[in-house]
Amino acid sequence: MNPTIKKLVARWSEFEDLTRATAVLEWDQEVNLPEGGSPARGNHLATLAGVAHEKIVSPAFKTALHEANKTRRLSLKEQAMVREAKREHQRASKIPAALVQEVARAESRGLDAWKNARRTNRWREFANQLHELVRLKRRVADAVGYRHLPYDALLDVFEPDATVKELDPLLGEVREATIPLVRKVRASKRRPNRRILTQKYPADGQMAFGRMVVEAMGFDFARGRIDLSTHPFCSGFDRGDVRLTTRIHENDLRSCLFGVIHEAGHGLYEQGLDPKLVRTPIGHAVSLGIHESQSRMWENIVGRSQPFWRHFLPKLRRVFPTQLKGVKLADFHFAINEVTPSFIRVEADEVTYNLHVILRYEIEKGLLDGTIKTKDLPAVWNGKMQELLGVTPRRDSEGVLQDIHWAMGLFGYFPTYSLGNLYSAQLFDKAKKAIPDLGDQIGKGNLTPLRNWLIKNVHRPGRTFSAAELVRRASGQKPSPRAFVAYVNRKYGELYDL
Amino acid sequence: MNPTIKKLVARWSEFEDLTRATAVLEWDQEVNLPEGGSPARGNHLATLAGVAHEKIVSPAFKTALHEANKTRRLSLKEQAMVREAKREHQRASKIPAALVQEVARAESRGLDAWKNARRTNRWREFANQLHELVRLKRRVADAVGYRHLPYDALLDVFEPDATVKELDPLLGEVREATIPLVRKVRASKRRPNRRILTQKYPADGQMAFGRMVVEAMGFDFARGRIDLSTHPFCSGFDRGDVRLTTRIHENDLRSCLFGVIHEAGHGLYEQGLDPKLVRTPIGHAVSLGIHESQSRMWENIVGRSQPFWRHFLPKLRRVFPTQLKGVKLADFHFAINEVTPSFIRVEADEVTYNLHVILRYEIEKGLLDGTIKTKDLPAVWNGKMQELLGVTPRRDSEGVLQDIHWAMGLFGYFPTYSLGNLYSAQLFDKAKKAIPDLGDQIGKGNLTPLRNWLIKNVHRPGRTFSAAELVRRASGQKPSPRAFVAYVNRKYGELYDL
Repeated sequence: MNPTIKKLVARWSEFEDLTRATAVLEWDQEVNLPEGGSPARGNHLATLAGVAHEKIVSPAFKTALHEANKTRRLSLKEQAMVREAKREHQRASKIPAALVQEVARAESRGLDAWKNARRTNRWREFANQLHELVRLKRRVADAVGYRHLPYDALLDVFEPDATVKELDPLLGEVREATIPLVRKVRASKRRPNRRILTQKYPADGQMAFGRMVVEAMGFDFARGRIDLSTHPFCSGFDRGDVRLTTRIHENDLRSCLFGVIHEAGHGLYEQGLDPKLVRTPIGHAVSLGIHESQSRMWENIVGRSQPFWRHFLPKLRRVFPTQLKGVKLADFHFAINEVTPSFIRVEADEVTYNLHVILRYEIEKGLLDGTIKTKDLPAVWNGKMQELLGVTPRRDSEGVLQDIHWAMGLFGYFPTYSLGNLYSAQLFDKAKKAIPDLGDQIGKGNLTPLRNWLIKNVHRPGRTFSAAELVRRASGQKPSPRAFVAYVNRKYGELYDL
Repeated sequence: MNPTIKKLVARWSEFEDLTRATAVLEWDQEVNLPEGGSPARGNHLATLAGVAHEKIVSPAFKTALHEANKTRRLSLKEQAMVREAKREHQRASKIPAALVQEVARAESRGLDAWKNARRTNRWREFANQLHELVRLKRRVADAVGYRHLPYDALLDVFEPDATVKELDPLLGEVREATIPLVRKVRASKRRPNRRILTQKYPADGQMAFGRMVVEAMGFDFARGRIDLSTHPFCSGFDRGDVRLTTRIHENDLRSCLFGVIHEAGHGLYEQGLDPKLVRTPIGHAVSLGIHESQSRMWENIVGRSQPFWRHFLPKLRRVFPTQLKGVKLADFHFAINEVTPSFIRVEADEVTYNLHVILRYEIEKGLLDGTIKTKDLPAVWNGKMQELLGVTPRRDSEGVLQDIHWAMGLFGYFPTYSLGNLYSAQLFDKAKKAIPDLGDQIGKGNLTPLRNWLIKNVHRPGRTFSAAELVRRASGQKPSPRAFVAYVNRKYGELYDL
C-alpha cells in the first residue's frame, strides 16, 4: 500500500472504529436496553457521533486526505479509498456543527412526536415537527450542495451518487408495470389458502427452523448471531461480527421465517466483505440499495421460489407435522406469494411493495421542493394510496403515520428499498447464466453456488465501485427495471393464471 | 451550580460517555460476542480508550479544570467534583502516550500467554510476559508518582487514596485472626452436609429463583437485566442501565445463587447513585473496596444468614421440592457456610477468602519492590499457600496461574476484595443499630430497610467523599478489621461449635 494511503487508512480506521462502536450501542439498544437506560444511551450515542465527526473533519484527517489525493500512480482500490474518504470528509465538513446539533435535536423531538401521534392516531401531533425536519433537511441539502435537486443531496447519504434524474425513469417504469399487474391479480379467480400459514406455529420451532435455513444460506454463526427485537434488522460491526434480529408471531409463519432470510441476506453481504479492505474507506457495503438487493434476493427470489421449498418444505414439515400435514408444495408456494393491496409497507408482498415505496418517494420529492405541504400530507397520502393501490387507510396510524423514517429525519432512504428489488432481479438473472443448474442446486438445498457468486461479484468489492458501476460489472448491464418487471410478470402470471 | 463547575461537568460528561460506551462494548464482549468478532472488538476498544484519553488530557479539559479549580465558595459536592476531575486528569496526563500503548500491548500479550500457560499448566509460558508487565507497571507508578511506595500508585486506581501503610495493619489483623480460626474449624468434629447443595438443580429453576431473590433485594429490572457469562460480573452504564451476569452449574446450587446475590449487591450500588450527580466527576462508585462491600454484604452477611433463609428456604423448596425435601433450615444454613481451605480463590468461603487475597497482596508488593522475582513465583505461591491455608496446589493452573488479573495488568486490585469484606461488616453493624429489628425484617423477607439505609448512607454520595471518609461517616468509625473479625468469630464459632 502506498505510504500516503496507509496514513489515510490509519486516520480512517479510528473514525470507523467509532462508527462501529456506535453500531454496537444501537444494536444493544434494540435488543437489550432496559427501559430506564434510554436517556443515558442517548447521551452515549450523541457523544460518539460528536467524536466521530471531530475525527473525520479534523486537520489531521484533512492533511492525510490531501496528501493521498495528490499521490500519483495509485491502484484502483487506493483511488477508491481516496474517493470515499473524501466523500465522507467533505459531507461532514460542509454541514455546520450548529446545524448538525439542530438536526439531532429535531430528530429526537420528531421521534417523540411521531410515537405520540401514532399511538393517539392524531396527525397534527406530528405535523409541526415534520415540517421543521423538512426545513432542516432542506438546509442540510443546501449546505452539502447538489447537482440538480436538493433531494439528491439527501439520497446521496443512502445511495451514493444516485439522483432523481436517474431514479425517476427506473421507478416510473416499475409504477407503470405494477399497477396493471396488481389490477389483473385482483381480478383473478385464483386465491391461495392463507390458512396454511396462520395456524399456531410455536416460537421455538420457528426459531430452530429459521436458524437451519440461515445456516444453509451460509451465514457463519462463528461470525454472527440471531436475536429477537421489535423490528428485525441486521447490523455488522465487522465481517467477523454480524448480528441479525427477527421477531416471531406464533399465528403467522411468515414473519419470523422471511424476516430471518431477509436479514441473513444482509448478513451474508457483511460477512462476505473483503478481509483485506477491513477498516479502510472501501471496506463497506456500497449502498443501501445494493444491501437491499441481497436481502430481497434471498427473501423473495430464492426464499419464495418453488425450488427452494422443494428442499425445505419436507424439513419444515418435520418441525410442524400437524400444521403442515398434507399441504402440497404448490399450495404452500402460492400461500407465501399471495398478492394483496394492503396499508402497511412492511407487510406488503413483493409486487405491491414497490408501490408503497413509490408513494413515499413522490411525497418526499414534493416535500423537499415545496409542492407538498406537511399539513396536507394525510390527504395526499390517502389520495396516492387510492391511485396506486386502490385502497384507502381507515386511519392515519395505518397510513401516513406508519413509518418511523421521517420522524428520524430519514429522507431519501425509501427509494433504496425499490432499488434493491430492481438490482436483485438483475443480479439473479446474471447468476442464473453463470450457474447453469442454479435452480436444481437450490432445489437440492445447495445454496452455496449462489452465495459464492454473490460474494465474488457483489460482496468482496465493498465500495471499490459505485452502486451503479457494481451492478453494471456484476450483471453486464446498467441498472434497469426490466429484469424485475419480467420476473414479477412471469411469476405472478403463472401463480394467478393471468 | 457554579458556572465554572458547569463547564467542567460538560467536559467531563463527554469523557464519561466514552468510558460508559466502552463498558457497553466490554459487557457485550463477555455476553454476546461471536468468536470471530474478537479482533475487531479489540480495535473498537483501543480506539475508544484513545479518544477518552484525548478528551481528559485535552487543553479544553485542562482549561475548564483550571477555571473551576480557582473558583471560590464552592459547595462540598462542587469541591469534590474538582478534586475527582483533577485526579483523573492528572493521572492521565502523567503517563506518556507511548507508555500507555506499551502497557496495552503487553496486557494483550500477557492475556494470551496466561491463557496458554493455564491451559497447558506451564508457568514459563507466562513468566516472561508477567515480568514485562511488572516492569511496565513499575514505570507507570514512577510516572504517576506516589507518597511512600510505587505499589501505592497502582492501588490508587482501584482504591483511591489507599496506601500500603494503611492496608498493612488492616490486612495484617485479618491474617492474624483468620489463620487460627481456620485451624480451629479444621479441628472441629462438626461437618455440614454438602450433598444438600450438590444434587441436580435444573438451570431454569435456579435462574427463576435467583431473579426472585434479586427482586426482593430491590434490584429494579426496569433499570437493569441479568444474563449469563463465563465469569459473573456487574456493569453499570448508568443508574438506569445496570447489568448483572451469572453462571449456572446444575450440580451445585451455590454458583448461580450466590453469584446473582453478589452481583446484585454491586447492582444496587449502581442503581442507588444520586440522579443529580449523573455524568459528573462524582456520580460514580467511590472505590472497588466500597463496591465489594455491597456485594459481599448481600452475598455473605445477608445471603448466608439464618434469618434470610428462614424466609427464602420455603420458597426455594417450592422450586426444588424433591431436592430439598426434609432439609432443615439449620442444616441448609450450615451447608452454605462450609469453611474449607481450598486452592481456588473464587470458590473460597468467606473466612478463607481473605487469606487468598492476602497471599496475592504480599506477592504484588514483593514483585513491585523487587524482593520477589517472577521466575520464583510458583514456589513463593505454594509456600504461602501452605503457610496461610495449610494446603499446596497440585499444579500451577490451580495455583499461581488461576487468576486473570495479573495477565491483564491489574496489580493493586486484589486487596479491594478484602477491604470490601472489612467495610461490609463495619457498615452492617451500623445498619443493625440504625434499624433495630433488621434481623426480623430480613427473616420476613423484607430487605427494603437495609437497602434504603445503604442507598442513603453508601450509594447516594457517589464520590463526594473518599472511601475511608465514607466508611467513617456511614459507620461512625474509621476503617477497621474489628467488625469483620468479630463477625466471623461469632458466626463460625457457633456453626462449628468452637
